[in-house]
Amino acid sequence: MQNYILIDENAVYYECSFSCDNEIFIVLGSEKFFITDPRYTLEANEKVKGAAVIEAQDLQAKAAEILLNSHIKELCFDPKEWTVDAYQKLSSALDITFTPAANFSQKKRIIKSEDEIAIIREAARLGAAAFDTFARHLNAHGKGKNEKYLFFDAIEKFQKHGEYALSFEPIVAIEENAAKPHALPTDKILTLGDHLLVDAGLKYARYCSDRTRCAQFDGNISFAKQQSFSDATHQKVYDTVLKAQEASIKAVKPGVKASDIDKAGRAIIEKAGFGDYFVHSTGHGVGLDIHEEPFISSRSQTLIEENMIFTIEPGIYLPNAFGVRIEDMIRVSANGVEIL
Amino acid sequence: MQNYILIDENAVYYECSFSCDNEIFIVLGSEKFFITDPRYTLEANEKVKGAAVIEAQDLQAKAAEILLNSHIKELCFDPKEWTVDAYQKLSSALDITFTPAANFSQKKRIIKSEDEIAIIREAARLGAAAFDTFARHLNAHGKGKNEKYLFFDAIEKFQKHGEYALSFEPIVAIEENAAKPHALPTDKILTLGDHLLVDAGLKYARYCSDRTRCAQFDGNISFAKQQSFSDATHQKVYDTVLKAQEASIKAVKPGVKASDIDKAGRAIIEKAGFGDYFVHSTGHGVGLDIHEEPFISSRSQTLIEENMIFTIEPGIYLPNAFGVRIEDMIRVSANGVEIL
Repeated sequence: MQNYILIDENAVYYECSFSCDNEIFIVLGSEKFFITDPRYTLEANEKVKGAAVIEAQDLQAKAAEILLNSHIKELCFDPKEWTVDAYQKLSSALDITFTPAANFSQKKRIIKSEDEIAIIREAARLGAAAFDTFARHLNAHGKGKNEKYLFFDAIEKFQKHGEYALSFEPIVAIEENAAKPHALPTDKILTLGDHLLVDAGLKYARYCSDRTRCAQFDGNISFAKQQSFSDATHQKVYDTVLKAQEASIKAVKPGVKASDIDKAGRAIIEKAGFGDYFVHSTGHGVGLDIHEEPFISSRSQTLIEENMIFTIEPGIYLPNAFGVRIEDMIRVSANGVEIL
Repeated sequence: MQNYILIDENAVYYECSFSCDNEIFIVLGSEKFFITDPRYTLEANEKVKGAAVIEAQDLQAKAAEILLNSHIKELCFDPKEWTVDAYQKLSSALDITFTPAANFSQKKRIIKSEDEIAIIREAARLGAAAFDTFARHLNAHGKGKNEKYLFFDAIEKFQKHGEYALSFEPIVAIEENAAKPHALPTDKILTLGDHLLVDAGLKYARYCSDRTRCAQFDGNISFAKQQSFSDATHQKVYDTVLKAQEASIKAVKPGVKASDIDKAGRAIIEKAGFGDYFVHSTGHGVGLDIHEEPFISSRSQTLIEENMIFTIEPGIYLPNAFGVRIEDMIRVSANGVEIL
């Protein structure tokens, strides 16, 4: 790809080690341009690597000017990144062929480098440690607090009081709220015996962690993978999801299709009679974006390669009752997986 | 507007009192459709008002099916809302004229109803109270903490430990970091005599508050508008920004052009010799979106009307030294303004 244009923050960060919330990044052969507005020029000049920092009030006009002066004939862009409005304003002013390439930055980033793997490994380690900290906190202070309060406690533990950014807003869901895969926190109060689902992650050096655990809150919980539930249905659902996760993880190795990883876990859940309640795909890549290539779904034809990093997170959600999801990040190794 | 399609969360919430992070909302005359995936069906069925909830794995295919069956000839969409990819997938499958209307939902929402004004007034009151709480916290515990730690303290105070969502990530910037209008928190430590800038807001019933204050940290700060600085340049810059803010607020009344509000404050800053350091526009509408119509810039031809709500927030940023911004939300009243 000779000439391309990017606006997504993580895509731009990957190219030049800096990004902000208003920028256009252009690569024309060996020339690179980071266009931003005066609010960010100071930081951009300090931090952008390998690209000229260009200040402009109207970023699109400046981009059009650079492209016009370049006399290029073709420019690659990501149609998932650009709005119809921004794309039409830019492309209609220029006699250049805009070639769409969906997710091309994510695809460039799909195999992680050794440096990236080291960073993501550390993000996952910090994320797992935050789960332990949060479990201790719940045991000491959780009883009688509502989801909103515990949601904030989770933010505090995963951010380590401002030291890290979050990968996404954590989910802390009790009982029937855990049946909503993307539950928002409510006023529901945590009491002994409650089913609890926690999905959270943090960013280390801009790379994300992501993990989900479930437990029955008894005042002495851990977020280990083996869990005991006093109710037989809870136990059966939990053990089914765990078995499904193990089956999907076992299916991972270089050369397999992403859909086969999904199928391996889904078959376990279907066989146990819960197929209708596994309402999402099995996993997603994790890196600078919390959801990125590769996507591990029943429709994905992506061939798995060494040093891809993605989640395996089957779930069963029984409406108005409870839900279970177990999620880990894995790295594809030469013969199988490293669980991060 | 007879037929239209929306995907933005706040735009959809405005239409039917619910939204999630994956939905398509279609209005065909008196018929309304809320299309979402199985993760959200449970909540959507509980909360969506005045629209049929449709569950689908592929939302765009389902939207295309509904549009095809409707036999409509024209559909309005917001080109700033749709990516090129999503738009082309949907529109190429249909023999319907897609009529672009940029920001049409924000434009529908530009005049706030009495109910919305009451909610935003409460959001602003809660936001101002959080500034007071944060000032007391800084006086008691701020000295010696770094920006990241204080950033998290600000989140805790503005969220009231999980009770409210934030309008945006707060800015807590010390000295030269305050010269970056969108500063990210660093390891810089707060010491007595430091210049401090805080920009923060919270959401009440989904509507945003937004406010910025500056002070010299002396262990007994408040975030009142009148502030004393030991350094003469700081005082001059602060007083200039305050005078500019007052001039812009005074220029607000029904019938004036948005650009004239910008001009009134900018003239004060230019006259004081700081024109090159006021690097952004004067304000933006606030409602469901933290930045929405109307935009108060030197180029905006928008005519101001009663019950618009927007910020007035001039600033002066001296690179590598410090920055001052003073921001309040105002409602346009019959003759002038209500400061929220």
